[in-house]
Amino acid sequence: MIGRTEVAAAAGRIAGWVRRTPVAEVESGAFGVPVWLKLEFLQHAGSFKARGAFNRILAAKESGELTSAGVITASGGNAGLAVAYAAARLGVPAEVYVPENAPEVKVRRLRALGADVVQHGREYSEAYDAARKRESDTGRLFCHAYDQPEVVAGQGTLALELMAQVDGFDTVLVAVGGGGLIAGIAAALDGAARVVGVEPELAPTMHRALAAGGPVDVPVGGVAADSLGARRLGDIAYDIAVRHGIRSVLVPDAALVATRRMLWEDRRMAVELGAAAALAALTTGAYAPEPGERVVVVLCGANTDPSDLGAPSA
Amino acid sequence: MIGRTEVAAAAGRIAGWVRRTPVAEVESGAFGVPVWLKLEFLQHAGSFKARGAFNRILAAKESGELTSAGVITASGGNAGLAVAYAAARLGVPAEVYVPENAPEVKVRRLRALGADVVQHGREYSEAYDAARKRESDTGRLFCHAYDQPEVVAGQGTLALELMAQVDGFDTVLVAVGGGGLIAGIAAALDGAARVVGVEPELAPTMHRALAAGGPVDVPVGGVAADSLGARRLGDIAYDIAVRHGIRSVLVPDAALVATRRMLWEDRRMAVELGAAAALAALTTGAYAPEPGERVVVVLCGANTDPSDLGAPSA
Repeated sequence: MIGRTEVAAAAGRIAGWVRRTPVAEVESGAFGVPVWLKLEFLQHAGSFKARGAFNRILAAKESGELTSAGVITASGGNAGLAVAYAAARLGVPAEVYVPENAPEVKVRRLRALGADVVQHGREYSEAYDAARKRESDTGRLFCHAYDQPEVVAGQGTLALELMAQVDGFDTVLVAVGGGGLIAGIAAALDGAARVVGVEPELAPTMHRALAAGGPVDVPVGGVAADSLGARRLGDIAYDIAVRHGIRSVLVPDAALVATRRMLWEDRRMAVELGAAAALAALTTGAYAPEPGERVVVVLCGANTDPSDLGAPSA
Repeated sequence: MIGRTEVAAAAGRIAGWVRRTPVAEVESGAFGVPVWLKLEFLQHAGSFKARGAFNRILAAKESGELTSAGVITASGGNAGLAVAYAAARLGVPAEVYVPENAPEVKVRRLRALGADVVQHGREYSEAYDAARKRESDTGRLFCHAYDQPEVVAGQGTLALELMAQVDGFDTVLVAVGGGGLIAGIAAALDGAARVVGVEPELAPTMHRALAAGGPVDVPVGGVAADSLGARRLGDIAYDIAVRHGIRSVLVPDAALVATRRMLWEDRRMAVELGAAAALAALTTGAYAPEPGERVVVVLCGANTDPSDLGAPSA
């Protein structure tokens, strides 16, 4: 089980490689309770995933598990970008498997970071299986998008920063896909604050896992599928969710779109739709804080095309 | 002369009305010296101008100078937006004069904030003159875009925040248009740190004023004219610049474009071209810090259409 000790070790390991992202205090009155926004979308490679990727690779370097064959992952999204970025910074070869139908722009982005991109299979699971086979054939270090202890511990370092940045918060709202970030945060906080997962109605992996008594495959879709589209909650995330009593609340796609636009128009933050989920829990009332409850909202990624935000209205 | 006392009074006056904007620490190695970015583009109405606008209106309310006739300004840019925003929040009528050729999107934005927009004259100076005449006719309170003591003192509150947020910085780099922000910052710091103005080569109002021994009309243009296009440095800014030994450095338009894009691609900050000027002083070497010099870069506005940033490259 991952706890604060593992997260603290990760923080020491990745210090200097990741950014300490700032926190914006929200003006009183905006949401009825004191709210802070953790601006993790300002992280390297545009999302929190850089934390887990650096921790996974650096831990493997320490243990001798990392060879000159380098690293491998399966992801056309934030995890792939983060692994490619971290590998490049650490001078390690990286291979990224994506489905054949991966958007050309993502493939170009990965290649720009120096990764070898392999397009394989019709959907993500086929790319994933091929990457795992390639891992065995080549001895490359597999970097999972969310379900590895080092990855979860790395993501949790965000919460250690938060504890130093915001005095005595009660609750953290976090978007959930595969659950790596929320698991790391809950492990790091270890009961010091309530942790609430926020998921699109159309991608309810944690919601379903908690209802089913374990991770189950879930049909996922909707506007945030590019970042929150994992089909199944990670086993590590499930264990931590149960142990720490994490709740999951659901928000509709329309609220993701509206909240992302509001973040740009009112605050000039251009985040991705998945990252808007956590704040949408407040704007929709899916999560209703008690009077005076001190709430931190994690804005976790901005790998978005801002074109549709157009001219700001104010 | 405005000093730290006036700025501290402004800070007390506008507390609760403006945001305390966060600071992002830049990872070591990025620019060769320790750098912090003051994320003032996250301010209400998208720029630092909200500080001065609130201070101007609230000070006039205290002194009795503000009547039920409300406020008036001349600006199709950040100052107009800030005055309209502050007036709306304070429940005061606002009239904004803009030239006849003001872009429709800006006019709509001002109206969305509840301002009465008057389109007058072929260029800014005609709209300005008409607004000053209207001021005399109606008793509305004129809010200048940069050259009023309350406006300068309001902008300076940014520096008081900075002193609490960053320990012992040596230098602040600030974009200059009419000079309200840099003057307020220099007044607040009062010698505690070096203040350097950064201007587009095509809008060198402070550069020319310092060379000429006083503010002079300057032909202005270039890509950042919408935010840094004041034709003449303010008298207050000139006095403070001389008193505090402010230097001005120039950067080419191409550097503004490249730096704005870099801020999005590397850091997911979508700022306006004028705001990119301050950082461009470092990327171009127009300002070359000493080894170990601790530099704060003010990113002062994001009233930009992010469409051209397109898909991020990493």
